[in-house]
Amino acid sequence: MGQPRLAIDLDRLRQVLAGVNRFGFNPQSGGFNRIGYSDADMAVRAWFEDQMRADGLMVTRDGVANLFGRFGPANGPCVMIGSHLDTVPEGGAFDGALGVCVGLECVRAIRAAGLTPAIAIEVVATAEEEGRFGGMLGSQSIAGVVTPEWLVTAQDADGVTLTAAMAAQGLDALNALKARRKPEDFHAFLELHIEQGPALESRRRSAGIVHSVAGVRNLRVDFIGKANHSGTTPMNLRADAFAGLATVGAAIPEIIAQHGGENTRVTIGKVDLRPNFIHTVPGQAEFVINLRDTDGATMDAVEAALRDQIEVAARACNLKSHIVEQSRIAPVKLDSTLAAMLHEEAKALGLGAISMPSGAGHDAQTMQTLCPAALVFVPSRDGVSHSPEEWSDWGDIERGANLMLAALLRLSGAR
Amino acid sequence: MGQPRLAIDLDRLRQVLAGVNRFGFNPQSGGFNRIGYSDADMAVRAWFEDQMRADGLMVTRDGVANLFGRFGPANGPCVMIGSHLDTVPEGGAFDGALGVCVGLECVRAIRAAGLTPAIAIEVVATAEEEGRFGGMLGSQSIAGVVTPEWLVTAQDADGVTLTAAMAAQGLDALNALKARRKPEDFHAFLELHIEQGPALESRRRSAGIVHSVAGVRNLRVDFIGKANHSGTTPMNLRADAFAGLATVGAAIPEIIAQHGGENTRVTIGKVDLRPNFIHTVPGQAEFVINLRDTDGATMDAVEAALRDQIEVAARACNLKSHIVEQSRIAPVKLDSTLAAMLHEEAKALGLGAISMPSGAGHDAQTMQTLCPAALVFVPSRDGVSHSPEEWSDWGDIERGANLMLAALLRLSGAR
Repeated sequence: MGQPRLAIDLDRLRQVLAGVNRFGFNPQSGGFNRIGYSDADMAVRAWFEDQMRADGLMVTRDGVANLFGRFGPANGPCVMIGSHLDTVPEGGAFDGALGVCVGLECVRAIRAAGLTPAIAIEVVATAEEEGRFGGMLGSQSIAGVVTPEWLVTAQDADGVTLTAAMAAQGLDALNALKARRKPEDFHAFLELHIEQGPALESRRRSAGIVHSVAGVRNLRVDFIGKANHSGTTPMNLRADAFAGLATVGAAIPEIIAQHGGENTRVTIGKVDLRPNFIHTVPGQAEFVINLRDTDGATMDAVEAALRDQIEVAARACNLKSHIVEQSRIAPVKLDSTLAAMLHEEAKALGLGAISMPSGAGHDAQTMQTLCPAALVFVPSRDGVSHSPEEWSDWGDIERGANLMLAALLRLSGAR
Repeated sequence: MGQPRLAIDLDRLRQVLAGVNRFGFNPQSGGFNRIGYSDADMAVRAWFEDQMRADGLMVTRDGVANLFGRFGPANGPCVMIGSHLDTVPEGGAFDGALGVCVGLECVRAIRAAGLTPAIAIEVVATAEEEGRFGGMLGSQSIAGVVTPEWLVTAQDADGVTLTAAMAAQGLDALNALKARRKPEDFHAFLELHIEQGPALESRRRSAGIVHSVAGVRNLRVDFIGKANHSGTTPMNLRADAFAGLATVGAAIPEIIAQHGGENTRVTIGKVDLRPNFIHTVPGQAEFVINLRDTDGATMDAVEAALRDQIEVAARACNLKSHIVEQSRIAPVKLDSTLAAMLHEEAKALGLGAISMPSGAGHDAQTMQTLCPAALVFVPSRDGVSHSPEEWSDWGDIERGANLMLAALLRLSGAR
């Protein structure tokens, strides 16, 4: 097992992350609130911009508040490294912010060693990754996959439009269309992120190198039966919408066993019964089936089996069913050459990294449309994320950051 | 098939029911709103009292606003006939009110024929049967089964206490304790009510004579698992509270087949998931299992099987479970001699009445603790009740009312 030529400075990394986390902290809950285009989100960008500038990086912002700090040649393609600075409401200390801070720390370590990259390095803090408005606006704008229609209609859960939220920060949402960058601008994209799941912890590994990011399909199902008195309506004369839902829910393990794979996830997380009253047979059940997998054909097979099961349940329980596809994101395979290089570097560092899928969406999957992209996970304690309890071990973080540094040195040809 | 010696006057019955339904009518929805101890509830009582007084009945009210109109001997036991005048919010035109009006119409028919009862007849309009405060306060006060503790703590779904609601109408809730009447005051109790279910309609029968009223047990179940990201949490590392609920819900038909009978009803009508979010594995599921049956031993067996299934589901889905019995009302067998007499009279009237259970609670089950009590159902269109769509055919109503009249003539010895 080799020693890295260079190493990141863990204390310096902790300090910059602590600096980021002074923005949006709620001392009552312990949660962090840097919702996309909130005041705290804009303030943390201004602070981080100052940090990068103090390090001699050439700083630019685009029209959606993506923040770039460039080190090395002013022209030509770059190796981009980073993640996002925005959080979900009451989020944790590591989600997104850690990856941005690791990017900056890697540059600091390279600079401190007196090295210069042959290919420029750009540290990026993307905007609005957490999907307040239903997308990953920052990286999607860089990749040029947002449409004017979406920009002017998108709104958050409270009905605030994207255009209004951006205007309140002096931004014009339509400038997202000018934020597009060309594939020639990129040599590679690297992102470190917390896993937000339990796989690494349960397998006692310090790092995961992501081979693909799961696609997502949300099917909203309405079962329509008949609300009736729970005492006076015999079982065989009911049209019980909950009974239909239970039939679908109970069939999920068998559907996955038959049609899914090890990366298949089927979740019914949201359920609304009507009238939702103890003494009334539910006349309506509205629920959403969230299906994820890294393989499109597997998703098709599982979705077909779920739709069959919905029909079976509706017939058995005397219900009408109505299915609407609420969203659909295709799975993405990340660059396998880049992943192989990361495995090599991980091995050289003595890091038992595993190859794994990502169940959640990340900027790397969008950047893969422009250039080879890689995503490295560090473990999440108890698999918890999007919560003040989110935590990652600093030893794991140090190992993950050194892996990113090794990859960055190699990709940028720094010497 | 014989003809009744006397018959009720359907037009007169329709008129008095229309009179009752001028109170609490909502012209927007078509619903009726005479919630227990509301102004509309008190106003309809005053109006109905006037009707009874105009018919020469001796009218009294007790401390909870039960209204009695006596015809015949001033002393000695009575045959009581009636039901309740209060409604659920946005209830229908027939629930309760029809039974009270049929009681008055029977007396009117007897009086119009110049007959006098040997045993007094009392028409009753009970108070607060619909359980705004969680009981059947009117008949329970007559039967002496309310406690001071309950009276001072009972409150409605909006947190209004029984004592406050009654005080607002000039009533002292503790007077419920003085409303108790002695078993010697009663010869029998008769109630006509709409079925509120589909059994009579589906079997094309005009009347049902109830042999027993189902008991009710409500089990509130909490499944506690762990909220997690739906993408990053592998299926085998989840503690999905909805998966546990679906396992229980899907097992209900088999549990009834194994341990229940034809009168067993198991309903999961109320479900609350937390956080109830599309992309989160539900960490908690709170739901209520409503179990009804006319037989206590069957209820015990079904409840035991449900509790076993809850344990099985909790173990399978890695959940903690917590069960609280929220309410428990024992099943009641109504008087079989009285029921047999009603079947005889129904036969004499050419009415193909069936013997059936009641899945819902009624005043008759409380009165059975004091005297032989009988409950007669007339069909409900589509089984619908507690709704503006509630409807019963006037031909069926006429047949049912004539059955009540025949029974009343026989029990009171009117001649």
